[in-house]
Amino acid sequence: MNFQARQKKLREHLATTRFDLLLISHLPNIRYLCGFTGSAGFLLVAETGSVFFTDVRYDTQAHDEVKAAKVVIARQPMLQCIAEWLGKRRKRARGWNVGVEAEHFTLADRKRLNALLPSGTQLKQAPAQVERLRLVKDADELARIRAAVRLGAGLFERAMEVLRPGVKESEVAAEMEFAARRAGAEEMSFPTIIASGARSALPHGRASDAVIGPGGFVVCDFGVILAGYCSDQTRTVWVGDGPGAPADARGAYEAVREAQQAAADAVRPGMAVGEVDEAARKVLRKAGLGRYFTHSTGHGVGLEIHEAPRVGNGQKEILQPGMVITIEPGVYFPGKWGVRIEDMVAVTAGGCEVLTPTSKDFRAV
Amino acid sequence: MNFQARQKKLREHLATTRFDLLLISHLPNIRYLCGFTGSAGFLLVAETGSVFFTDVRYDTQAHDEVKAAKVVIARQPMLQCIAEWLGKRRKRARGWNVGVEAEHFTLADRKRLNALLPSGTQLKQAPAQVERLRLVKDADELARIRAAVRLGAGLFERAMEVLRPGVKESEVAAEMEFAARRAGAEEMSFPTIIASGARSALPHGRASDAVIGPGGFVVCDFGVILAGYCSDQTRTVWVGDGPGAPADARGAYEAVREAQQAAADAVRPGMAVGEVDEAARKVLRKAGLGRYFTHSTGHGVGLEIHEAPRVGNGQKEILQPGMVITIEPGVYFPGKWGVRIEDMVAVTAGGCEVLTPTSKDFRAV
Repeated sequence: MNFQARQKKLREHLATTRFDLLLISHLPNIRYLCGFTGSAGFLLVAETGSVFFTDVRYDTQAHDEVKAAKVVIARQPMLQCIAEWLGKRRKRARGWNVGVEAEHFTLADRKRLNALLPSGTQLKQAPAQVERLRLVKDADELARIRAAVRLGAGLFERAMEVLRPGVKESEVAAEMEFAARRAGAEEMSFPTIIASGARSALPHGRASDAVIGPGGFVVCDFGVILAGYCSDQTRTVWVGDGPGAPADARGAYEAVREAQQAAADAVRPGMAVGEVDEAARKVLRKAGLGRYFTHSTGHGVGLEIHEAPRVGNGQKEILQPGMVITIEPGVYFPGKWGVRIEDMVAVTAGGCEVLTPTSKDFRAV
Repeated sequence: MNFQARQKKLREHLATTRFDLLLISHLPNIRYLCGFTGSAGFLLVAETGSVFFTDVRYDTQAHDEVKAAKVVIARQPMLQCIAEWLGKRRKRARGWNVGVEAEHFTLADRKRLNALLPSGTQLKQAPAQVERLRLVKDADELARIRAAVRLGAGLFERAMEVLRPGVKESEVAAEMEFAARRAGAEEMSFPTIIASGARSALPHGRASDAVIGPGGFVVCDFGVILAGYCSDQTRTVWVGDGPGAPADARGAYEAVREAQQAAADAVRPGMAVGEVDEAARKVLRKAGLGRYFTHSTGHGVGLEIHEAPRVGNGQKEILQPGMVITIEPGVYFPGKWGVRIEDMVAVTAGGCEVLTPTSKDFRAV
């Protein structure tokens, strides 16, 4: 990972703003900029260099992991340590504007830090500039994302071996998660969703102790984290006799599949993400299912399972090569069943590359 | 769970403040007050009643789960929905002070919500009052915590079956996590730490692909979430010939064990948590290991794996019956090895109940 290059881009941005320094508090942003993977830290980015603050628990780990920043181990509360650092350097400058990440910094932390700051130093709300850099993945990131998606896709094959009527949703999830760990995943990227029967109509129906019954859909939505990067995939399978599935269920499945394909086909540089969302929505409207598609078509994926851009109705973010998003339309009939199909795609110069290798054919178990 | 009783306590507090309403945004606090387990929502608590806002993905789930609050499904961004709800009721009152959770509400959300609010309505920073209520666990919570701790303790026995020289740290974690799922856990309460050899000196050495070698410590720190409540436990085992372990390693183990016992013995109502921390620290200082004990003695556990109180040096929170904390001293020799031993304990009227059932005897595998 080229942390120097990433920080250089952030510094180029910094030079165009009213901020003298940026205080990065959001852990995925810190990891992106300097490689630290622990759970506590702040990165202070100045035009002349960066300083990473963490606590004693991460002394060894920070010195091992952190690149392109000086490491400071706080022996007192971290905000106090940061304020003292700023105080010592304050004399070199007149007035300092320190940008904090407005989307992540809390009111309480601002109050605390303000009380500790040397006079002449002010905290200002900074926009989500690191998230903007993270929108477009570099080659190292794409390689890691591809590896995560590949590992994740293997879990669906494991699910197909164990998903049967009479088995608990949580048992299917357990087998998938065990396979993930054994294949080298660090953890799941979100609580595994195995939603059977009427629970398949819950867009976020995480695996429960419910026993999978015959004659319904099971939505399987799952992902892994591998070398820090997330995968995200959904397949929906019919439990029982496939050809005997009711016409409305088969129809809904095929409509969602067509919508998913239409949205993926719409992905190319220069398109607004709202147009991708609309491509999926249009297919489902035509099939008379528009009002059952209740969520957005997708979201960015990378160091976080949900990151920019949101691929939703009317969203204006313009696709660029290197962006990685999910395409995951679904329809949900409360109390009855639901269907969702999700791939991850990477925007390329000419269109998009579908990263998820798993077949989307109607499948019965 | 008696959500009415919890909200009643919050309302009694509300009546003593300058806040007319409280906007609860921290998800564990929302779960505590009304039962919602999803990943997006806000709870507005007024003296006359509560309203829970979520998005369309959680329509069915919110109506199933949420108690003691009216459910509103936002068709537009949630903050907009909240602002409109306030706007409609605004005419009934003169000026409204809406308290937001200062420890959780971000600068950006405050800016957004401020821009949408009706005139005469002001956002004010509220202290962590729900966290204060959550400090003391009620009987339902203690029952769930006991069940989580019991399930979690079983995982260590599974670890002891598979932890051998030549096995990867991640394989041990995989087997423990699989056992957790099969026993009904929803997920792990944090990334499982299996830290062998020199990695045992990393207080947060999550399981890696490192192969466990002979002749060193392995720190196993793990926990589960069961019915929403977390467990947290650490045991450290010697790999190889137990009686042949070096005297300094055995000595450090026994000193940590003694420190852990001393801190647990110090737990009783009326003690400050800093005194519990000091009880552990004193033993390790006497053993000449004080400077290798680099973190706090423990933390509260409940709906979150780390919650109040912090059982650290000089902390003044007074223990009350119903509080649940970890006692987890450790010593770390960078590049060499580390030892940590951790139990969860509940404060009782007469002292404390050690919840974790696992033996702390020196153990070799």
